[in-house]
Amino acid sequence: MKLQAAIDRVSLGDAVTLAHRLDGIADVIEFGTSLVKDYGLVMIKENPLHLKKSKLLLDLKTIDEGPYEFRRGFEAHGDILTVMAGSSYDTISKTYDITQDVHKEMLIDLLEVDTAKIKTISGFKNAIYGLHHSRDAESNFDAISATKKFHEDFPDIKRIAVAGGIDVEQAKGLSQQGIADTVIVGSKIVGEEDPVKAAKQFKEAMKK
Amino acid sequence: MKLQAAIDRVSLGDAVTLAHRLDGIADVIEFGTSLVKDYGLVMIKENPLHLKKSKLLLDLKTIDEGPYEFRRGFEAHGDILTVMAGSSYDTISKTYDITQDVHKEMLIDLLEVDTAKIKTISGFKNAIYGLHHSRDAESNFDAISATKKFHEDFPDIKRIAVAGGIDVEQAKGLSQQGIADTVIVGSKIVGEEDPVKAAKQFKEAMKK
Repeated sequence: MKLQAAIDRVSLGDAVTLAHRLDGIADVIEFGTSLVKDYGLVMIKENPLHLKKSKLLLDLKTIDEGPYEFRRGFEAHGDILTVMAGSSYDTISKTYDITQDVHKEMLIDLLEVDTAKIKTISGFKNAIYGLHHSRDAESNFDAISATKKFHEDFPDIKRIAVAGGIDVEQAKGLSQQGIADTVIVGSKIVGEEDPVKAAKQFKEAMKK
Repeated sequence: MKLQAAIDRVSLGDAVTLAHRLDGIADVIEFGTSLVKDYGLVMIKENPLHLKKSKLLLDLKTIDEGPYEFRRGFEAHGDILTVMAGSSYDTISKTYDITQDVHKEMLIDLLEVDTAKIKTISGFKNAIYGLHHSRDAESNFDAISATKKFHEDFPDIKRIAVAGGIDVEQAKGLSQQGIADTVIVGSKIVGEEDPVKAAKQFKEAMKK
């Protein structure tokens, strides 16, 4: 299982420094939506990370104007971009085609969509489908049972990422469960005093 | 009926110039999502428009982390910010509270949500509800009949904005219909050789 470390709500300079420290430890380094909306893709493009091992995910959360945003995101050195499952089918289809054309990856963020909607967009076979609990939502989220349920509902979807307040214990459980492809961790890594140590703890716990 | 002119997919410098030219002609000047994601709220904050008459809408399309994004958006001089109807209820509720606290405005973008979802979020009485057809969608959109239908389904929603390829004739029809509070126009103004002239034509057509 891959580890994705999400960097959010810091200055772009701090994000770049942290990305370099986590390069090769986290499999994927995410520049979260706050970095995209605070600093913009133009500035992210002009400050390439040149990561040696990790992939860069830019959490665009595209919900319309898919082709425009995805072209800009890939120009800004994103290896993986995100589109909302709540977009129109055409938005997702167009971003998928662009992603395939440039041999990059995309994550379809399943935030706040129901089973009926997921059914209509479940056929993009190279896409990663991201189970995602809203940060703002007051309700609880159990990553392990949510992943199990999703896999039962959509057994044909092979690439699953899970996000939502995940700690080391949950990451370990997800790894043992063996369904999810990627676990996305935010504050439990980048909010720690030593993010590198925290990321290594996650990786260690995720070894089967 | 108010006219909102949406500026998108240009450099921030050109957007600022155009905003000043449209100040006082369009009632609301929108910096579209492409400007937010290309240049970022930090740069928009550092280049205040100081509009004399028009209000500034920043099309954040917030779908999570509502409080963070709305605080950043208001700091960047937005008078009106947007949140997706497809967000969690808590995201919309929290952005609404922040908006009320600072005596600004918010638009709930109804892109790709169904009637059942709208029902659950129809009670934010000072919010503007934005009927919005996806730019990427291949299907057609009739702004006038969509507005009529929406008003029949949700008679208690008083503030309605309509967007989606609207031209002068449709704007005239919407004005005569008397339901919508605001018409949002993109390319038919800012894509024209003379955007000021185009905006004036819309305003003229919208006089009852």
